[in-house]
Amino acid sequence: MTDKSQQFASDNYSGICPEAWAAMEEANQGHQRAYGDDEWTHRAADDFRALFETDCEVFFAFNGTAANSLALSSLCQSYHSVICSETAHVETDECGAPEFFSNGSKLLVARTENGKLTPDSIREIALKRQDIHYPKPRVVTLTQATEVGSVYTPEEIRAISITCKELGLNLHMDGARFSNACAFLGCSPADLTWKAGVDVLCFGGTKNGMAVGEAILFFNHDLAEDFDYRCKQAGQLASKMRFLSAPWVGLLQDDAWLKHARHANHCAQLLAQLVSDIPGVELMFPVQANGVFLQLSEAAITTLTARGWRFYTFIGKGGARFMCSWDTEEARVRELAADIREVMAG
Amino acid sequence: MTDKSQQFASDNYSGICPEAWAAMEEANQGHQRAYGDDEWTHRAADDFRALFETDCEVFFAFNGTAANSLALSSLCQSYHSVICSETAHVETDECGAPEFFSNGSKLLVARTENGKLTPDSIREIALKRQDIHYPKPRVVTLTQATEVGSVYTPEEIRAISITCKELGLNLHMDGARFSNACAFLGCSPADLTWKAGVDVLCFGGTKNGMAVGEAILFFNHDLAEDFDYRCKQAGQLASKMRFLSAPWVGLLQDDAWLKHARHANHCAQLLAQLVSDIPGVELMFPVQANGVFLQLSEAAITTLTARGWRFYTFIGKGGARFMCSWDTEEARVRELAADIREVMAG
Amino acid sequence: MTDKSQQFASDNYSGICPEAWAAMEEANQGHQRAYGDDEWTHRAADDFRALFETDCEVFFAFNGTAANSLALSSLCQSYHSVICSETAHVETDECGAPEFFSNGSKLLVARTENGKLTPDSIREIALKRQDIHYPKPRVVTLTQATEVGSVYTPEEIRAISITCKELGLNLHMDGARFSNACAFLGCSPADLTWKAGVDVLCFGGTKNGMAVGEAILFFNHDLAEDFDYRCKQAGQLASKMRFLSAPWVGLLQDDAWLKHARHANHCAQLLAQLVSDIPGVELMFPVQANGVFLQLSEAAITTLTARGWRFYTFIGKGGARFMCSWDTEEARVRELAADIREVMAG
Amino acid sequence: MTDKSQQFASDNYSGICPEAWAAMEEANQGHQRAYGDDEWTHRAADDFRALFETDCEVFFAFNGTAANSLALSSLCQSYHSVICSETAHVETDECGAPEFFSNGSKLLVARTENGKLTPDSIREIALKRQDIHYPKPRVVTLTQATEVGSVYTPEEIRAISITCKELGLNLHMDGARFSNACAFLGCSPADLTWKAGVDVLCFGGTKNGMAVGEAILFFNHDLAEDFDYRCKQAGQLASKMRFLSAPWVGLLQDDAWLKHARHANHCAQLLAQLVSDIPGVELMFPVQANGVFLQLSEAAITTLTARGWRFYTFIGKGGARFMCSWDTEEARVRELAADIREVMAG
Repeated sequence: MTDKSQQFASDNYSGICPEAWAAMEEANQGHQRAYGDDEWTHRAADDFRALFETDCEVFFAFNGTAANSLALSSLCQSYHSVICSETAHVETDECGAPEFFSNGSKLLVARTENGKLTPDSIREIALKRQDIHYPKPRVVTLTQATEVGSVYTPEEIRAISITCKELGLNLHMDGARFSNACAFLGCSPADLTWKAGVDVLCFGGTKNGMAVGEAILFFNHDLAEDFDYRCKQAGQLASKMRFLSAPWVGLLQDDAWLKHARHANHCAQLLAQLVSDIPGVELMFPVQANGVFLQLSEAAITTLTARGWRFYTFIGKGGARFMCSWDTEEARVRELAADIREVMAG
Repeated sequence: MTDKSQQFASDNYSGICPEAWAAMEEANQGHQRAYGDDEWTHRAADDFRALFETDCEVFFAFNGTAANSLALSSLCQSYHSVICSETAHVETDECGAPEFFSNGSKLLVARTENGKLTPDSIREIALKRQDIHYPKPRVVTLTQATEVGSVYTPEEIRAISITCKELGLNLHMDGARFSNACAFLGCSPADLTWKAGVDVLCFGGTKNGMAVGEAILFFNHDLAEDFDYRCKQAGQLASKMRFLSAPWVGLLQDDAWLKHARHANHCAQLLAQLVSDIPGVELMFPVQANGVFLQLSEAAITTLTARGWRFYTFIGKGGARFMCSWDTEEARVRELAADIREVMAG
Repeated sequence: MTDKSQQFASDNYSGICPEAWAAMEEANQGHQRAYGDDEWTHRAADDFRALFETDCEVFFAFNGTAANSLALSSLCQSYHSVICSETAHVETDECGAPEFFSNGSKLLVARTENGKLTPDSIREIALKRQDIHYPKPRVVTLTQATEVGSVYTPEEIRAISITCKELGLNLHMDGARFSNACAFLGCSPADLTWKAGVDVLCFGGTKNGMAVGEAILFFNHDLAEDFDYRCKQAGQLASKMRFLSAPWVGLLQDDAWLKHARHANHCAQLLAQLVSDIPGVELMFPVQANGVFLQLSEAAITTLTARGWRFYTFIGKGGARFMCSWDTEEARVRELAADIREVMAG
Repeated sequence: MTDKSQQFASDNYSGICPEAWAAMEEANQGHQRAYGDDEWTHRAADDFRALFETDCEVFFAFNGTAANSLALSSLCQSYHSVICSETAHVETDECGAPEFFSNGSKLLVARTENGKLTPDSIREIALKRQDIHYPKPRVVTLTQATEVGSVYTPEEIRAISITCKELGLNLHMDGARFSNACAFLGCSPADLTWKAGVDVLCFGGTKNGMAVGEAILFFNHDLAEDFDYRCKQAGQLASKMRFLSAPWVGLLQDDAWLKHARHANHCAQLLAQLVSDIPGVELMFPVQANGVFLQLSEAAITTLTARGWRFYTFIGKGGARFMCSWDTEEARVRELAADIREVMAG
C-alpha cells in the first residue's frame, strides 16, 4: 500500500493507538464468551463507572452513527422530535440515521452561537408549536466538542439541562470528541455529564484511537430499560465483543484517552498559532478542541489540494477544516502551516 | 483475565486468526482515507471479485445481524415477506432485526429436511396466500451451512433458485459459515452462489477468524442500487473501514479462509467419530460443516456443564450443540469426547 | 349497480345502519371544528366513558388494521414481542401491519383452545426464551369475539390478565366484534374489559354498522401518553372527525350497538340450528358470536359457490365460514340453510 | 349541538356536499364485496381514468396525511430524501408522517417564490450534497394549489418535471386542493398532471366535499407496483370501501368537483375584493385558489377572534389565513369583510 502521509481531513484518518492495540492483543488469547458476557466487557464497563464516578449503565456500539441514533431513539418515540444545532452531525452527516432508528422522529434545527445551543435557542424551538400536527419536542442533543471545534462549559450544560427539565426534554450528548472537550476544559467527565444534568452520553472511541466502537453511558437508569435488546435488534451487538471493549480498557488505563486528546488539541493550537499572522487567514471559530477552521482564499484551497493536502472545505466560501488526531506529528503541522503561508502569499 | 480455555458453545468464542491480525497490523500504519475510500477496502473488494470469478458488488458491515438484515431489506419492501427455515438464525436469534431493518417484512417459516429448504417447501409457503391481507412473498433466504450443520449442494441451490425465478422471488444466502460449506463440498465459491442462482451472499468473517465484519456480495447488480446509502443510514458504515477490510485481505490471501474452515470441519468430524460408539449418544444431524449435534441424556448434559464445558442445549430434549472453530485444538476435542464418554457411562 | 343480495362472506359486506346514518345526517349541518375538536367527538367520547363506567381515554381511527396496530405499538417497543393466537387477525390478515406500525415487533403465536388463548399457552410462549437474541414478550392480544366465533368469559379474561401482570405483559383486546361478545355473554362492557384487567380495547364500529371507524379505549392512562400524536403521524387523524364520531353517538344511544349485535348473533344461532341435522355437516367451533363455521364436503362448497353464495373457505379442508351481520334477514338465512341441505344431499 | 356558523379557519370545517351524500346513500343499499372489490370502487376508478384521459392506476386512502405519505414512500427508500417547499404541508403539519411511512426519508426544504418551487430552487437542493453521508434526493413534491393559495401553471410544472427527469427525481403532487387549481387555471386535470410530467397525484376529496377519502393516481405504472399491499399494511384499506369510492362517483359526475372548487375560489376572490380598499390590510399572496392571506394588525386579529371568527394566524406577524369552502355563503363572506373593515378602523 502506498501513501500513508498524515492528513488533516478528519481525525478518523488515523489508526489504532498503542494502548488500544496492546489491549486487543492481550484480549486475543484463547476463548471468551460471546455477546458481551466476557471479562473484558465487564471490566471496561467498570472502568467507565470508575471514571465517571457513578453507577451508570454502559453499552457498546460499533460506530457513532449507531450509538447516537440508538440513544436518541431510546429517548423519544417516532412522533417526537429532537432539537439539535444546525451543524449537528446527526442532522448533516448521518444520512437520516436518527430518523431511521427512531422510525421517523424529526430533527428540529435551533440557532447556535459558535456552534453551541443555548437555553434560549432551545426554548424558542421547543415552544414554537404545541399542536399535534407537529412532532412534540422530547430530546435535546448537544455535541461536545461541537462540530466547529467549540466546547460547552459545565455551566453552559447545566443551564441547558435546567431548561430541558423545565420543558420535559431529555438531554443527550454526542461525545464523538468528548475526550477533546475534557482535555480542553480540564474538567472531570462527571462534571461535564451527569453532574451537569446529561441523561445519556455517547463517548467516542474511534476518534480517540480505537479501530471501531463507541460507548453509550446512561446516567438515567430508567431510560436504559431493555436498551440491550435495542442494540441487538439494530445490528449493534458484537459477537466477539471483547474486541470492542478491550480497547477501552487500554484507553481508560492511566488516562491514555486524555493524553491522546490533549495531544490532538495541542496540535490544533499549534496550527492556529502558526497561521495566526498570515495575511488573509482568519479563524472562523475559536480553537478549543482538536479542529481548526480557517477562512482562506479559494485559490489557496485549490493549491493546497493540488499539493496533496486533504481537508474538508465549504464550497464557495473559502472555509477549510483541519482536524488533528492522537497521532498527529508536530512536524507535519508545521509543514501544513508553512504550505498555507506559501499558498496565501501566492 | 482468567479462564481462556477453548469451548464449543459457539465458533464466535474464538479470537482473531493470525492472517487477519497481521493484515490489521499492516493496515495500522499511518493515515488512510475514511469510510471505505482507502486502499485496503478497494483491495479486499477486488480480492472477493477474484475469488468469486465475477464482477460482483462488495460491501462491508459490522456483523451478521446487520449484514443479513440489510441484504434482505434491499430485496423486498415492508409489505413483502421472506421465506426461511424454522431454524433460520434470522427467525430465531436476531431479536426481530430483519423486521426492524425492513420496517415490517414478515418471515414465513417453511418446512425443512435436515435444516434445508426444498423447492417444494418454498412453493408451498409462497403459494399459500395470494391476497393483499398477507405479505407478498418476495425473498427466499438460505443459510449455508445451515444452523444444524448441514450443507446445500450446488444442485440443491440451483433447484431452489429455479423455483425462485419461477415464483418471482429473490434468493439470499446467509453465509455466516459459508467457508465451512465450501470446505465440506470442495466447491468453488462461484459454484455455490451466482452460478447456482444466488442473488446476494452475506459472507461471514467473524466465525472465520476476524474480530468483526461480514462481507455482502451482490451478484445481481440491480439489487445493489444505493446499497451504500442503506448501510450508512443503518449505522453500518465504519469510518476506519480499513480495519474491517484489511482482515479480509489477510483471510483471502493464500486461501487462509478455506484452511481455517477445513480445520474447523475436521475437528467436528473428529468429535463425531470419537463419540460414535458411545452408548446412548446419537447424531441429531449429519456432520457436514463445523457443528456436531448430539443427543445425550439430560444427566450427562448437567454433568458436562458442571465440569465446566460450555455448549448450547435444547432444554428438555437432551440435545447438545458443539461448534468447532478455526483455532480448536484436537487435544481439546479429545478431552471433550472423553468427558462425554465418562458422563454418559455415568 | 347490480347485485346487492345479502351474503355471508363477512360482516363487512353490510352497509351503514339507520342509527349511524341518522347521526351522520345530523352531524352534516353547518361547520364544525376539525381534527376532533368538535362537539360530536367530545360527545362520543363521553358516551363511551358512560357505557364503560370509567374515565377511559378515547381515540378514533379509520379501521381495525390501524386501531389494533396503533394500540399494540403503544404497548411495546420494536424489540418486544406480542403474544397472539394462531388465528389472530393481526397475525393472519393484516399484511404485517403490526410489524410496520411498531417498526418490527414480532408476533409470537401461542396454542389456543377453540381459538382462545389460555394462561398456560401464554406462559409457555412468554417463558420460552429469555435472552436478548429473541424479542422480549411485552404484550398479549386477545380477540373478543375470536376469529372462530368463540367468546372469552370475564373469568377467562381475568385469569389471563393475572398471568399478564405476573409476567410483565400488557393486555390488549381486539374487539372488532366486541359487541357480539357482549351480546352473547350478557355482560357489561366494563366486566369484559377493565374490570377483568384489560389495558386497551379496540372497539369495532365498522362491523357493528358504521361506514368506517373504530374506537380505541385506554383504561390504563399511562399507556395513552401522546397517543394522539401517534394517530396523527400514522395517518389516522380524520380532519372531518365528526363523521367518525357521530355514528358512534348514534350507535351508543339506546343501546343500538347491542341490538345489532344480538340480531347478528341470533341469525348465526338460527343458521346453526337449521343445519344441525344435515348429514355430513358439522360445527367446527361452538357458535357464540355471529359466525358459523361448518365442515361441509368439498363438492358442496363448489356447488354453493356456483349458486352465487359468497363465504370464506379453508382450501382443501371442506371448512366454510358464514358471518351474519346487523342487517342479515332471517329469510336469507333460511335460504342459505336450505341450499346447504340440498347441496349436501346432492 | 350548538354553533354551526360558517367559519374560515379551514376548508375542512365544512361537511359533506349533496352529490357525495346522495352517492353514499345510493351505495348504502344491500351488500357489497369488501376491500374495494365492489362496483362503486371500480366505477370511481374508471371515472378518474375518464377524467384524466389516461389509463392511470387509482387507489383510495382515508386522508391526505396517509395518501401523501404512502405515495412519497413508494417513490423513494428510507435513505433517500424528498425536496419540498418550506410551507409544504408534509413538512409543517403532518407530525412526521412522511418520515414514519418511509421509515426515515428526510425532507429537504427548498426556497420558493409565492410558495412555489422552481427548477432552480430544486436544482440547488438536489446538487448541494452528493455524498453518502446525506440522504440522496429522489423525489420532488409540489402542492397544487400551494399552502399559500398560489397555483402552478402547466408550464411551471413542466419546467419542474424536466428538471426532475434530468436529476433522476420522481415528481409527486399533493393535490389536497387540486380541484381549486383546476378551477383557477381552467386547465384539464390531464394538462396539470401527467401531460406536464407528474408521476403521482394525491387528489383531495375531503376539502372538495367528502367525509373522508383521497384518491391516489399513479400515471407512472412502474411506481405503483404492489401499492395495494402498501396501503393495506399501513392501515389504509377500508373494508367497506364503497363509502370512500361512491362519494367520488358523485363528485366526478357532471363536474360537481369543479363546480364546488369554482365556488370556493369565487368566495375567496370576493373576500379579497371586499377588503382591498381597507387601510392597513394587505394581501400577503396573490389570491388564486380558495385561500386569502391578509396582513392585518395584531389588534384587529384579537378583536376578530373575540367576535367569534375562527381563522389561522401567524403569531407575532399579524398574518391571517381565511379559507373558503364548497359551501361558503356569500353573505357570510360579506359579514366577515365588514367585520374586518370595522376592526381595522377600530
